Parts: sequence; structure tokens; C-alpha cells
Amino acid sequence: MPVGTAGSVKTISPKELDEDIGAQIILGNTYHLHIRPGDDVVAKHGGLAKFNAWNRPTLTDSGGYQVFSLAEMNKITEDGVHFRSHLDGRKLFLSPETSMEIQQNIGADIMMAFDECVSLPAERKYVEESVERTFRWAQRSYDAKTNDEQALFGIIQGGADKELRERSAGQITSIPFDGYAIGGLSVGEEIPVMYDITSHTTQFMPEDKPRYLMGVGTPQDLLNCISYGVDMFDCVMPTRNARNGLLFTSKGKLHIKRKEWQLSDDPVDSKCDCYTCKNFSRGYLRHLFKAGEYLGMRLNSLHNLHFYLSLVKNARNAINLGVYNTYMKETLEEMSSGGE
Amino acid sequence: MPVGTAGSVKTISPKELDEDIGAQIILGNTYHLHIRPGDDVVAKHGGLAKFNAWNRPTLTDSGGYQVFSLAEMNKITEDGVHFRSHLDGRKLFLSPETSMEIQQNIGADIMMAFDECVSLPAERKYVEESVERTFRWAQRSYDAKTNDEQALFGIIQGGADKELRERSAGQITSIPFDGYAIGGLSVGEEIPVMYDITSHTTQFMPEDKPRYLMGVGTPQDLLNCISYGVDMFDCVMPTRNARNGLLFTSKGKLHIKRKEWQLSDDPVDSKCDCYTCKNFSRGYLRHLFKAGEYLGMRLNSLHNLHFYLSLVKNARNAINLGVYNTYMKETLEEMSSGGE
Repeated sequence: MPVGTAGSVKTISPKELDEDIGAQIILGNTYHLHIRPGDDVVAKHGGLAKFNAWNRPTLTDSGGYQVFSLAEMNKITEDGVHFRSHLDGRKLFLSPETSMEIQQNIGADIMMAFDECVSLPAERKYVEESVERTFRWAQRSYDAKTNDEQALFGIIQGGADKELRERSAGQITSIPFDGYAIGGLSVGEEIPVMYDITSHTTQFMPEDKPRYLMGVGTPQDLLNCISYGVDMFDCVMPTRNARNGLLFTSKGKLHIKRKEWQLSDDPVDSKCDCYTCKNFSRGYLRHLFKAGEYLGMRLNSLHNLHFYLSLVKNARNAINLGVYNTYMKETLEEMSSGGE
Repeated sequence: MPVGTAGSVKTISPKELDEDIGAQIILGNTYHLHIRPGDDVVAKHGGLAKFNAWNRPTLTDSGGYQVFSLAEMNKITEDGVHFRSHLDGRKLFLSPETSMEIQQNIGADIMMAFDECVSLPAERKYVEESVERTFRWAQRSYDAKTNDEQALFGIIQGGADKELRERSAGQITSIPFDGYAIGGLSVGEEIPVMYDITSHTTQFMPEDKPRYLMGVGTPQDLLNCISYGVDMFDCVMPTRNARNGLLFTSKGKLHIKRKEWQLSDDPVDSKCDCYTCKNFSRGYLRHLFKAGEYLGMRLNSLHNLHFYLSLVKNARNAINLGVYNTYMKETLEEMSSGGE
């Protein structure tokens, strides 16, 4: 799903997300919205969807990931995490109960249980303690939720340790959450490790509830992890890379800044029917990128998001037709054929 | 007209300019496009309109304004201006002939004669020399034009001196350009001076050809200068101010960053039917501005451009109905009623 860290999907309007990109759900970051404008402000504006003029579902993360990766001086206790805002240094505290309160204020359709996200590599002993703490925090998150209108997903942790992943999956799925997520991946480990842990973990997750792999990934990652049974993803990759001039195409990656595109009249991806590909040349997009024009970031973001959403739409169709493995194989082969 | 300095109207797509804003023409800067991506590159992409995926008219300025305001170490000779690129310091030269060559490469529907734009205040003697030089350069521009598909406008100079403005108007309008522009205003003089010089100069300009006031201005400036007989304007004000959080409304200016909008569910302008005003609150736009979100710059730009284009569309209607003075008076009164 497209990710809007501070209350918007960067450079893209809700209308484009809906009509041009076909997004079904957007993610807002609990940590960012809590700090600015404040979850109380979002609540007074009628919640995240209304605030954003977005007419479809929304999701908030637990805040944990940003607390561990972005905030300063975080200190973990059994009760929760003490940290300082990365914006102004003020002292803040996030716990299962405060995360639920904030997420209920933000009012997304799906909330995430408060968890600890451990950077990899990490000592097994620490990961084990973290798995146990995440289980206790998951139960407290579940107990703290008071709004029946919002769904709540639990998050499985366990680092790169298969035994701990199985243990965490057993613990978290013992709580009747509305869906289950795999957290703590895409945090520094190698891609084969991420694939290995994901495919190992999904086998311990119920089939009748959504399975959400957090913070993943490249188009190739999505296709592989769908084959392991994952239903949902979120990632900044399509938009962040777009702003940096890296475009995803059916033939692989394309760096728009390259000199060879200066006179190119070709679209980014001749197979793509997004606004960018239907109207603009690689030469124009290269110029916008070199000139630092905002429109370049925007047209690139529109393309990458359209590419990602088309990829998973086609994956859904292939699954429904019972031909997913063929779709994946052919798509991956084409993606590795002509990266530029 | 919306201004696209480096080949785009900042943050705004051609589709929005056409469908949401109703722009009839966009301006590309000769200086910027010559330096990057190079007018030869624009030519190879089929000209400015095709490069930009813009299906309506385009205009290029002469390059003079940027050479005098932006470039480094400019040195004026009878032949032309020697200067260094503000981007990389390389030596460049712009003259009537090279300006025409570049503008023909860029391929806009309207080109501007190469002129000297003098900063104000300035010595009368210098302004007089500059008026004479601009006349000689205007004739050379006219003579250097070889493409019959493109229109060419002459530019009247003369600083804040009425006698020199009259002289320049007589000189420039003696050359059968397709339209005439008033240049060298909005360059440091007070607003009443700009109004005085504009109303003085238009009386020496033919009524049957477009009159274009360059680099102007605020909504109030446009309404007043239309009453002096001006037909065309270009200005960065709607987009630049939008990016800085200054919005134009039917009741005057609105600074979106102000704390008082934090919880406001009101649109920027309840009389406006742009996408921004129809979908987003002042509270959300304030949040986007405070968070430095690109979408905020974009939604603000969309509103300001829509406001400007609606203003001049209504002016055209009022002129056609023979009620322009009433329209101007009422609109100016309302604009001064509730600036926030």
C-alpha cells in the first residue's frame, strides 16, 4: 500500500491515488502524526481519511518502527519506550496503551499492535527477550483497544531466527487479531534471509486472515513473498526511489538521470499506461530530474506507484486464475532482461 | 500566464493546467532552457509544447531578464550581452540574433524581441541609452526571425521615465511586431509608479494588437492594469507564493502557516471551486506546509493558479458585458475586506 509518512503520499494527490493508481488503502505513520500535527488534531478533523480527503481504507502502523529507527535516545522498559522526538527533542513515551489511544484518535480502519522492532543482526538472547516482550505488548494492545469500528493486527517478530519466528507466530496468532503481520524484516538482513524467514513464518499464520509483510520491498520481493502466502505489503520504495530518479519498469530498473535518455522520445515503460508513460518522454523526465523540478518527482512517483499497484493487481488476477507461479516466473524473467 | 522557468510549471502537471486551471498559454524561459537542457535538446524533442506534453500555446521570453538579474558578470556591448551561467559559470553570449535562434529552436508560438531590462532606480542617462539600444536590438530581432510559424512581440522599455516610455513605445511600435510588451517594470519600483508608467505607456500602444505587461503581478495589479488596457501578464507570484504558504482568496491574502488554521475545517476560499478548496481544509493544508510536504506546495499552487485564471476569466466576461469597472471595483473591495 502507498505510504504517507506525514499525512500525504509524497507529491501525489488522493485523487491520483484513487483514479490513476488504483490504490485500495493508504498507510499513515503513528509516530509522525502523533508528533505533527498531533493525533488530537487529526481526530478533531474527523480522522485520517477525512483529513486526507481519502475515500478508501486507511492503516496506521504502531509507531514502534519509527521509535526504534528515527527517534533519539530510546529506552525500552517493560511498560513501553521512552524517547525524544526527532523534530524538537521533546520527551515522549509510547506503550501498547498509548499507541492504541493514538491510533484510535487517528481513526484508521486497520491499527497495528505495539511491538518492538529489532535491527539485524542482533544477539539471539536479545531477540528472544524481544519476542516475549512483543507477545506481552500484543496482549496489552489487544486489551487496550476500545473502538469496535477499527480492526487490529498483531505483529510477529523473531529476527532472523526460525525457531523464534515460529514461537512468536504461535504466540501472536493465539490472540484473535483481525490480521497478522510479519515485522522486523527489511531491517538490514540479506534478501535471501528475508525470503527464508518470510516463507518459514507464513506457514504458522492462519490462512483465513490477512497476512501483512511490513516494509517490503522491491517488485521482485513482492512477487516472491506473494508466493510464500503474503497478502499485504507497505513500502516507501516506489515513492522514495521515484524522487531519487529510480524508476521500476517491466524490464527492470531505469535510472532517469542517465545521459543516454537526453534525446529519448520513448516512455519510461512502453507497457505502462500511467499518465507519465502516456504523455512524457524519458528525455523530458531526465530534464526535470536534472533541473530538480518538483514535477519530475511527481511524475516519477506516479509511474512507480502505478507500476507497483499494477503488479499486485496482475498477481491477484493470476492467483484467481490459478496461474500465479507462471505469472511470477515470466514477470521476474522479463524484469531481469533489460534493466537500464 | 503560468510560468515554467525550467520546462514545467512547478509542482503542476500539464493536465491540471489545462483541465483544472484553464490556462490558455504557458511561458518557458529562454535563458533557463538554453542552459538546461539546451535549446537544441528541446528542438530535437519537437519543441517546447511537445516536450512538455502541452497542447495549447506557448511563449518564450527573450532571455534578457534572467541575463540581467540572474547570470553572473554580465557585460553589455552593442552586439549583445556576455555573461556567465549561474549554474556552472561557463561563458555565454546572448544577442538579438542568438536569442531569436534559441527561441526558434524552443519553438514557442510567441517569441519576444531581445531587450535590455534595467533595474530601478536608474540614472536617466543610462535608461535613455538603454532605450535606444533596445530599439536597435528590437529591429535586429525582427530581422533575425526566419520562422513564419512563430509570432514575435517587441518590448517597450524606458524605466520610470514617462518621456522615455513614450519614446520607446513610438520606436518599438514602428516595427510591425505581432504584439507589444511593456518590459522593465516590477524591477524594484513602487506600485504607484508601476501603475503610472503602465497607464501612461498603453496609450501609445496600438489597440488592435496584444498588449503584454511582463512580470506583473498581484491580483490587484492585474485588475488595475487591465483597466489601463493590458491584455496579457506573466508572473511567478501565484506559484512561488503558493510554495511559501501565501494563498490568494476572494477576501485577500491568507497565510496558511498560521496557528489559527490548525483546527479549521474551512476551505481556503469558500467561493473557489478548485480541487484544493473542494476537498481540503485549511487545517490539512497548514499541516502539509508545516511538515514540508510536497503535496502542500502542489495543492497551494493549484489553488493560486485557479484563483488567478478565474480572476482574468471573470475580467474578460465583464469586459464583454461592458461592466469591467464595476467588476474591478467590487472585486478589489472584497479583496481588501478580509485578508487573513
